[in-house]
Amino acid sequence: MPRAGLAAGSSKVDIAIDLGNPLLNRTVDGFLKIGAVGACRVAAEDAFDCLQSGSVSKRKLEQTLKKMCKEGAYWGAVAGVYVGMEYGVERVRGQYDWKNALIGGIASGALISAASDNKGNKIAQDAITGGAIATAVEFINYLT
Amino acid sequence: MPRAGLAAGSSKVDIAIDLGNPLLNRTVDGFLKIGAVGACRVAAEDAFDCLQSGSVSKRKLEQTLKKMCKEGAYWGAVAGVYVGMEYGVERVRGQYDWKNALIGGIASGALISAASDNKGNKIAQDAITGGAIATAVEFINYLT
Repeated sequence: MPRAGLAAGSSKVDIAIDLGNPLLNRTVDGFLKIGAVGACRVAAEDAFDCLQSGSVSKRKLEQTLKKMCKEGAYWGAVAGVYVGMEYGVERVRGQYDWKNALIGGIASGALISAASDNKGNKIAQDAITGGAIATAVEFINYLT
Repeated sequence: MPRAGLAAGSSKVDIAIDLGNPLLNRTVDGFLKIGAVGACRVAAEDAFDCLQSGSVSKRKLEQTLKKMCKEGAYWGAVAGVYVGMEYGVERVRGQYDWKNALIGGIASGALISAASDNKGNKIAQDAITGGAIATAVEFINYLT
């Protein structure tokens, strides 16, 4: 079930959304969690920039917020597509191994590349890269 | 224990190396496995290129082989550094959660960036990106 939470000190807010379908639930969960990680990355990077330059302006804060939303949505979309694809492949194949990650990665790579207005060969290359990255990540899981 | 294998039809060759130290074992294992994935990516991409252009030359094969070695070594090195770092952090902290991935990712990002002749701010940015990617991957593991 997708959960999003905010914690400040000892107070905590938890939101859980149930969409009544495991595929949708996982996709939304992936979007929320990885989107938050992507947004945090931008926040950390821009905070570091502010520390370096020693100045904070309203305009800069607005820019950071916009960038956080944009990058968070992108990371979230990529993760959501991949998690949904892998779950779908797992259901169709009926077993769980690294080939799910490979197929899910290839499908996600092709889909995301096609959605970014790439054509022909570039889509195939991105599909191969997506499959390779997903397989590498799956192997690293078994190692750690 | 690091294992490398070749399988062709029903015959299989398995090589296992024991370096007598779990940290070294994991690092070498990560290098071999992820290096193989990186090399396969190049092979698949260049095979696709050959299919597209419809021609295979000796020079092109040599180029592909060189690129496979280079990219395999790079992917392997990145994975080895990350796996080693995460294991080290786990041993030092004494517990296993997503913070290990975050710290390991930050350390690996900084190390790899420094090794690629980057300076100052770029290293810090790469460290933040490394930490974010490692955290995102760790969250995806829990989802799938």
